Amino acid sequence: MDLKKSPLAPKNFPRMPGVTGVSSSTSLSGLKYKGRPDLLLVKLKSNTSVAGVLTKTSVPGCPVIWCRDKLQKGKAQALFVNSGNANVFTGSEGQTAVKEIAKAVSASLKCPVSSVFMASTGVIGEKLNYKKIITKIPKMSENLKEGNWNKAATAITTTDTFPKGASEVALIRNKKIQITGIAKGSGMIAPDMATMLSFIFTDANIPSNILQTLLSRNVQNTFNAITVDSDASTSDTLLLFATGAAKSKAPTSADDPVLKDFELALQSVMLNLAKQIVCDGEGAQKLIQINVTGANSKKSARKIGLAIANSPLVKTAIAGGDANWGRVVMAVGKSGEKANPDKISVCFGKTTIAEKGAVVEGYNEAPVTEHLQGREINITVDVGLGNGKSTVWTCDLTHGYIEINADYRS
Amino acid sequence: MDLKKSPLAPKNFPRMPGVTGVSSSTSLSGLKYKGRPDLLLVKLKSNTSVAGVLTKTSVPGCPVIWCRDKLQKGKAQALFVNSGNANVFTGSEGQTAVKEIAKAVSASLKCPVSSVFMASTGVIGEKLNYKKIITKIPKMSENLKEGNWNKAATAITTTDTFPKGASEVALIRNKKIQITGIAKGSGMIAPDMATMLSFIFTDANIPSNILQTLLSRNVQNTFNAITVDSDASTSDTLLLFATGAAKSKAPTSADDPVLKDFELALQSVMLNLAKQIVCDGEGAQKLIQINVTGANSKKSARKIGLAIANSPLVKTAIAGGDANWGRVVMAVGKSGEKANPDKISVCFGKTTIAEKGAVVEGYNEAPVTEHLQGREINITVDVGLGNGKSTVWTCDLTHGYIEINADYRS
Repeated sequence: MDLKKSPLAPKNFPRMPGVTGVSSSTSLSGLKYKGRPDLLLVKLKSNTSVAGVLTKTSVPGCPVIWCRDKLQKGKAQALFVNSGNANVFTGSEGQTAVKEIAKAVSASLKCPVSSVFMASTGVIGEKLNYKKIITKIPKMSENLKEGNWNKAATAITTTDTFPKGASEVALIRNKKIQITGIAKGSGMIAPDMATMLSFIFTDANIPSNILQTLLSRNVQNTFNAITVDSDASTSDTLLLFATGAAKSKAPTSADDPVLKDFELALQSVMLNLAKQIVCDGEGAQKLIQINVTGANSKKSARKIGLAIANSPLVKTAIAGGDANWGRVVMAVGKSGEKANPDKISVCFGKTTIAEKGAVVEGYNEAPVTEHLQGREINITVDVGLGNGKSTVWTCDLTHGYIEINADYRS
Repeated sequence: MDLKKSPLAPKNFPRMPGVTGVSSSTSLSGLKYKGRPDLLLVKLKSNTSVAGVLTKTSVPGCPVIWCRDKLQKGKAQALFVNSGNANVFTGSEGQTAVKEIAKAVSASLKCPVSSVFMASTGVIGEKLNYKKIITKIPKMSENLKEGNWNKAATAITTTDTFPKGASEVALIRNKKIQITGIAKGSGMIAPDMATMLSFIFTDANIPSNILQTLLSRNVQNTFNAITVDSDASTSDTLLLFATGAAKSKAPTSADDPVLKDFELALQSVMLNLAKQIVCDGEGAQKLIQINVTGANSKKSARKIGLAIANSPLVKTAIAGGDANWGRVVMAVGKSGEKANPDKISVCFGKTTIAEKGAVVEGYNEAPVTEHLQGREINITVDVGLGNGKSTVWTCDLTHGYIEINADYRS
């Protein structure tokens, strides 16, 4: 099927400089997609630190199981990604496929097998023809280039309508540090599976245990604060690589003040990529930001936010430009979290629609309807209890979603 | 908007005899719907026992709050329902509306205010013009009839495409007992809220505490085992009334052997009504039954079943006739419940697609595709752990859902 570029896509792929110690190349396996790259090889400076956050599914893909194991060592020298086949639910053959690809990468780049990280995205349950992939690796190893981001971001897409990248510069001990990431998600072709993959690279010198803390504590408000359709993938993978090429003295802990600027920049890259994924949600026409305040805790606020963001009734109302704030109240109610019905307030854009548990006197829908005509929708809900707050992002639910997932078969 | 009758609707409204001690009448308030009844008054024999199950939302409608309070006494003499306005999130005025309507019913039927049960379904957040409703009550009290089920079931609908009724006969101490119920859900007009209402009547003589036990323990596998779009309502109300007119000696407990046949018949009525609600899910073209076996517990099986039933990716795949079993595996994985990936098996219809954690050798998709052309789809998943099993029902997710909830505004 022909997918039009999302109306929420950025105008261009961002200009992103190379990260010292990171080079990449892409290739075409021809396994599923014709005439476009679907393989990515990234070479990393020896002694690169790595941290990762992987899907919590009870049915993880074979590359996820592999990464979980290899992350314990905290060191990486290569990353290999294929799109079109997720290598999930493929039995022992799927595990063989991962091992054989990792071995081939290891042989080409002359690095330990255990330093090769892997990710796959695409159809579930089909065997991965790893032999065909392996034949491409020697050539890919010869073509490695620094700053090859647009091609790298494109090679990991499935039916994303645009490649996703984000980059920031941070200072560590007055030294300029590059943080650059790519991501894919969550367009798909039936019978494929939406998956979120993101790889972030920096030349900072940060040990893997500190890197892991930084990554983990910034995931909750970035990648874990987005939802397209509530369906968690079997392959979600987020990896952060630090080559150390910038040669600054290593920090002593994740709370070392020298990391303050770096962490802000990292969070910015993560949030930027996460929001690009929502902007490419299947059939997305609008980006919806949901701010929940007044909850009993941050965790409670987040759960309420996700209940609103995952409500098909809220998402279809936004798609229809319908100022249906009652559905937002419904979603608060079903979240399972505490709220004070007599104190709930709801704002769409800058307009307060309801407060103290009822619609405001003389409520005028016109400015709300106007706000809903835009591409970026803001919903703020105060649930009238405490100081817990959280923001989540989603997209609307449109005919496009049904078309992508029901009307077409690959 | 014009809603076509669901292709899953039964051919006709069932023939249902009257229940002794129960009479009803309907009327038109003209508040929202033109030219169709939207008010239902049911008179119940004095000393009727009542049991109920109400929405767990933290933002309950005013009639829900009223019923929760009145259920404590366990006695009912009237039920009043309006459709078109849910009387939710309407502040203190909403509570006044409930009280005033109950008072008017009480005056007309000469029964205590606290014996009047109430339910409302429709738009959220709009004030209910109860004065207009009250003017209709005296006339309604004069027109009460036994066995008026089709009209009663129609008066409580919002944009349901067919009225829903079910009836069974049971024996208690060799006496024939009638159990008859009506229900509504879950068509809707934007900006309305889908709500599930169901009222079941029997002439059995059962004290309210026993009635409550019977109702509560059969809800989990009937009304709580269905889902259309995962959005729980602010108004969900299920009430069971026992007039005692059959004059059999009262049972001593819910486990009294004399109730065995009655409980089976009650469960049958509840399941029948629940499945009719799914068959009238917005845009539904297919009824999907999901059987989960091999889970750690019944509760775990149910949670896995609902994760599959609520997955937009599974529901759109079924809508598209796509044998996308990988999405079912994905939903198992995201449920948060334990599963053994190496032992999972998946069947569509009578075809085993995957077992022992991978697709079966020589899998032939043809019979599965044929099964998916039908109106009733069966999915069975064994998660390879224990003896926990559960069945849930849902419908597919189609363009009709988007049309009903996004494209039209009232």
